[in-house]
Amino acid sequence: MTREMERTELIAREGIRDLLGRYTWAGDTGRVADVADCFTTDGVLDLGDHGGVLEGREAIADELAAVVARAAGAGEAPSPVNHHVSSIAITMADPTSATVRSYFAVHTDQGLDHWGRYRDDVVMDPSDGHWRFARRTVRVTGFAPGSRFAPAS
Amino acid sequence: MTREMERTELIAREGIRDLLGRYTWAGDTGRVADVADCFTTDGVLDLGDHGGVLEGREAIADELAAVVARAAGAGEAPSPVNHHVSSIAITMADPTSATVRSYFAVHTDQGLDHWGRYRDDVVMDPSDGHWRFARRTVRVTGFAPGSRFAPAS
Amino acid sequence: MTREMERTELIAREGIRDLLGRYTWAGDTGRVADVADCFTTDGVLDLGDHGGVLEGREAIADELAAVVARAAGAGEAPSPVNHHVSSIAITMADPTSATVRSYFAVHTDQGLDHWGRYRDDVVMDPSDGHWRFARRTVRVTGFAPGSRFAPAS
Repeated sequence: MTREMERTELIAREGIRDLLGRYTWAGDTGRVADVADCFTTDGVLDLGDHGGVLEGREAIADELAAVVARAAGAGEAPSPVNHHVSSIAITMADPTSATVRSYFAVHTDQGLDHWGRYRDDVVMDPSDGHWRFARRTVRVTGFAPGSRFAPAS
Repeated sequence: MTREMERTELIAREGIRDLLGRYTWAGDTGRVADVADCFTTDGVLDLGDHGGVLEGREAIADELAAVVARAAGAGEAPSPVNHHVSSIAITMADPTSATVRSYFAVHTDQGLDHWGRYRDDVVMDPSDGHWRFARRTVRVTGFAPGSRFAPAS
Repeated sequence: MTREMERTELIAREGIRDLLGRYTWAGDTGRVADVADCFTTDGVLDLGDHGGVLEGREAIADELAAVVARAAGAGEAPSPVNHHVSSIAITMADPTSATVRSYFAVHTDQGLDHWGRYRDDVVMDPSDGHWRFARRTVRVTGFAPGSRFAPAS
């Protein structure tokens, strides 16, 4: 690996970690536009059995805004939803794209609520140098008893 | 961003991650002086409802030493207190200062005990090039039933 | 620190984080050869009371393969075992060796199962530039009630 390649990859990996951090905190603090900005224009958020597949930054923003509005309409006080993200493994495909795997464990004020894994395809956006999700796949491994997010059964 | 800026920021972010790691392991292994050294001379440790605001490296060291002494005086065997820190998001303000957010989940030998978030103002100390906390704000999101650290009610 | 030293250390720390990520995901997805490749030829995996000390890459691969075979022989469907690794603290000894501490919390489909800490001696392998474990020490802090991995009592 040349020095130039090393330098490029260090910056890429730092930018990818930054993306995961920005998404987590934007989501957990309800900043819908900032979450949407973590995706490419035609980026996909695949929530599987727990939300379906949202295609495009606009669809992602609309769905997240609807979730926030429903919660407000139901008179729910905002309560903490903390995504603890760890075990980040980055595999560079080329200097401007990579796949990333990580785990999340959501803790609310009641304790561990649900947990699972992310599998991301990320790309460097030449327009501003930021890394964004081309596709983020979310898979829940389990819900705690009494989870606020468990599907109704 | 120039190459020089990139290089400086990579080193800064690595140094900030190192600070969070050093603090965690110094605290969890009871090395009071090493915890205190993670703060600037006039650094602040804001523990909110669970310990108040400690101002200055000396006050922080004194309080931590008192906690250790009380535990020893009560005949308590040291038991593991593991701070699992994740979701680190770093926002550079300028080349020598940044804000950092992260989550912690404390696991003892009994399991998850309490969890919450850190919000840090960090600065690069020109005297040795290390990053230190100008202010570390700790906020607990919840305590597990039977938590060893929950406030008496 | 010279620029050359800074550059070398940034690459080292990124490579060490990469090692921890590769190990975690190889282990959790049952890729025995990839786990073994995370160790030096004479690397040691010290599992303490929960598996003993495995010496050499071959012994590590054999033991992991046996675990997989026993599970398959018992007709167990593979179930998720997610190692959430956090609080990584890297101490460079010299440009090609370091000690690393981190925490893990294993979540299965049933929730938190067991948790503890890693203490690693890692070295840069000049043959391919990858970092590998010369010794990985695993110590469990606790098992949850009903843990699938708790020792029979």
